[in-house]
Amino acid sequence: MENSVLKEVTQNISFLVENRDIYTLKNLLLSTHPADIVDLFHNLDEKKMVYLFSLLPSDLASEVLADLDDYSRELVLENLEENRLTQIVEEMDSDDATDIVSELSAEKAEKILQNIDIEDSEEVRELLQYEEDTAGGIMALEYIQVNQNSTLDEAIQEIRRQGEDVEEIYYVYVIDDNEKLVGILPLKQLILMPGKTRVIDIMEKDLVTVSEDTDQEEVANIAKKYDMVAIPVVDPDGRLSGRITIDDIMDVVDEEASEDIHRMAGIANDEEIHETSAMKVSRTRLPWLLFAFVGEIGSAMIMSSFQASLEKIIIASFFIPIIMAMGGNAGIQSSTIMVRGLALGDIGLRHAKRQVFREFRVSVINGVVCGTLLMLVIGVWFTSMDHHLEFGAMLGISMFFIVINATLVGAVIPLFLKRVKIDPAIATGPFITTSNDIFGLLIYLGLATLFLQHYA
Amino acid sequence: MENSVLKEVTQNISFLVENRDIYTLKNLLLSTHPADIVDLFHNLDEKKMVYLFSLLPSDLASEVLADLDDYSRELVLENLEENRLTQIVEEMDSDDATDIVSELSAEKAEKILQNIDIEDSEEVRELLQYEEDTAGGIMALEYIQVNQNSTLDEAIQEIRRQGEDVEEIYYVYVIDDNEKLVGILPLKQLILMPGKTRVIDIMEKDLVTVSEDTDQEEVANIAKKYDMVAIPVVDPDGRLSGRITIDDIMDVVDEEASEDIHRMAGIANDEEIHETSAMKVSRTRLPWLLFAFVGEIGSAMIMSSFQASLEKIIIASFFIPIIMAMGGNAGIQSSTIMVRGLALGDIGLRHAKRQVFREFRVSVINGVVCGTLLMLVIGVWFTSMDHHLEFGAMLGISMFFIVINATLVGAVIPLFLKRVKIDPAIATGPFITTSNDIFGLLIYLGLATLFLQHYA
Repeated sequence: MENSVLKEVTQNISFLVENRDIYTLKNLLLSTHPADIVDLFHNLDEKKMVYLFSLLPSDLASEVLADLDDYSRELVLENLEENRLTQIVEEMDSDDATDIVSELSAEKAEKILQNIDIEDSEEVRELLQYEEDTAGGIMALEYIQVNQNSTLDEAIQEIRRQGEDVEEIYYVYVIDDNEKLVGILPLKQLILMPGKTRVIDIMEKDLVTVSEDTDQEEVANIAKKYDMVAIPVVDPDGRLSGRITIDDIMDVVDEEASEDIHRMAGIANDEEIHETSAMKVSRTRLPWLLFAFVGEIGSAMIMSSFQASLEKIIIASFFIPIIMAMGGNAGIQSSTIMVRGLALGDIGLRHAKRQVFREFRVSVINGVVCGTLLMLVIGVWFTSMDHHLEFGAMLGISMFFIVINATLVGAVIPLFLKRVKIDPAIATGPFITTSNDIFGLLIYLGLATLFLQHYA
Repeated sequence: MENSVLKEVTQNISFLVENRDIYTLKNLLLSTHPADIVDLFHNLDEKKMVYLFSLLPSDLASEVLADLDDYSRELVLENLEENRLTQIVEEMDSDDATDIVSELSAEKAEKILQNIDIEDSEEVRELLQYEEDTAGGIMALEYIQVNQNSTLDEAIQEIRRQGEDVEEIYYVYVIDDNEKLVGILPLKQLILMPGKTRVIDIMEKDLVTVSEDTDQEEVANIAKKYDMVAIPVVDPDGRLSGRITIDDIMDVVDEEASEDIHRMAGIANDEEIHETSAMKVSRTRLPWLLFAFVGEIGSAMIMSSFQASLEKIIIASFFIPIIMAMGGNAGIQSSTIMVRGLALGDIGLRHAKRQVFREFRVSVINGVVCGTLLMLVIGVWFTSMDHHLEFGAMLGISMFFIVINATLVGAVIPLFLKRVKIDPAIATGPFITTSNDIFGLLIYLGLATLFLQHYA
């Protein structure tokens, strides 16, 4: 839905809810795509959302619940009675059911697992064992597999048998007599080839798989690299243990990009956007604030050691903000380009040197522009000051070196961190900014002292 | 390939290239997945890459060329003679062929278009008309369509006829007698239902489509929202004009996340990671540097207007870096959370107020912690100073207000920009940092002056 449409629908629905027009509401919900219902729910006030959820039939409710954001989902789950939750969970694919069950209290989860179909509950119990952010944690157990010695007709029978549980089928997975995954068969082949053909003769043997413990970011990178719409997950013996479909991989891509973005801003990677406890949020942000705090106490110490110079030309202190800010911004620009390039794999071994050299050339241009401007500003501002042109030149030269230094620090530190296997995203933001503040002050106050020695 | 494996393979290949062992190299390349060849090329030095590319048969070359990064692709294209390029382009899907042709000089492009198959060249000419970052610019013309009155058997015949050109088939698109798109048919149905069934009776009529001029970011959001592996693109009359597959959508997701990340760091959104012209890169970064420059000249003016206070307690200037840095970091943290939440649609109308209130509570906690710490540091550092406890209290209180102010500015500005339909990502980085520097200095120097009036 467009934003404007969404707003109108939200208002209409609010009106219907206030009037308890159950009949119209139910019809409206039934004719709306589950993804649009999710949008609507995210924009309704909380009571209305919970009420509307209660009107959904359990198949629709299961699709909506799986897609709600954490905050809304928690609200709905709190207000859901056991019987209805059981029905809803039974309608879900194994991966979504596992997500829901893992969010319940241990006691409630156990009850739901005892109430649902025994086969479903075994699947969920199996999936609950995997770490949340690994292939095992995001895979589903709904897929079609056939033996390599089957004919295509037999494979079609198998799809007919299993196909009801499996919503989206893109490939049929092919196993050997030891249940090892040995190939995949695109549905297109099933349609185009004669029914008597043996699967083994036409399957694709060039397999790309992941293990149960592969990190989800790695899974997403593999899917992107090999353009796959579903990735098979295999156990250590090479047996198929699940499949991950592209919609779940898209979620991972967004999640991982958010994690990078948050890290770059100095936020520990587990800050939930809908976390309501200010204490918990504060705990994700304070570490980097305190890191910067310590660094900047260092800045204060550096300044105190230049106290004599500062007292002689108090004007020099006016330009500490601009010197620091320009260094900070230039450093964030170059580090961001590096961190993102490394995250997407756009910067390889071959590119690193070229990239740093490029940053150097860019920094020289930007340093010259900013330095010259600052010199001009001082030239017209402090005309009454003795040696104001020399003072301007000193400031301009400081700016020049600080921009170059900050840009290079921003470019090199992520590469270094990548090499020692620390996430480069951590380097950006507070880390680079604080380092650049310290370097910047040293350069600036050093040059200012030289200026004083010659002209005061 | 794992990084360590990649490194080893790169070394082996380099050795083979140096010895011109064409036979082994060709065999090696033929048995390697095109995506792995791309990885390898990105890590080889440039001459070797161009040489290896010349060994690829044209079908493999077309897959590799489509996936190379811009820099490597340009290098390869420069070294490719017309005949071979024609062969390679002919092997490509219409969307990839269009990308390549659009990168050539007008003259070279025209030659290629005259040399390739007339049907292919018409397709490319058609696709070249669309803006690069719209649905039309990323769609391909390879898809299967059948009339709604066909039987499934006829649909299968159609797949057999068209299927050779269409690599990945997930759905068959269904049109009416006026060629309007009226439904889609998942391949699974084609397999499971009897051959005499009419398409119209089993097709899915609940269509999600985009127009040719829909922005690619919107296309990606729709694909994510509705969990689609391919999106049909329709013209203003509702006729199918192309389809966008999920692998191209994944590229868009990465591209858009990069654009956001770059904007947040104060980089104009068209900085190419492999751009080699330092002038061009500088032009993407200077605007925000100059914006910050102007803002920080404002800071210098504010400081000059407090010159009298600063001269009396020069020590106050030591803490300008920490005051500015903490405000800057706190503002970047909150604005990043907001900008990302808005970009992913995680923050809706309902959430905005709650989110700002949450940021307020977080800022109070962080402000208290940082303010108290600063007070303590001053308490033990400047014991020889008169009224050093009061001075410390003044600094602590400044820090407290500055953290709160910066956090709230960081949270509110993105929401405001979103409302007036400016990309909130632009707000983060230099914009917020510069504003917070100015606010921060005013708060700090104002309180410092009050302190002086009472104690000096």
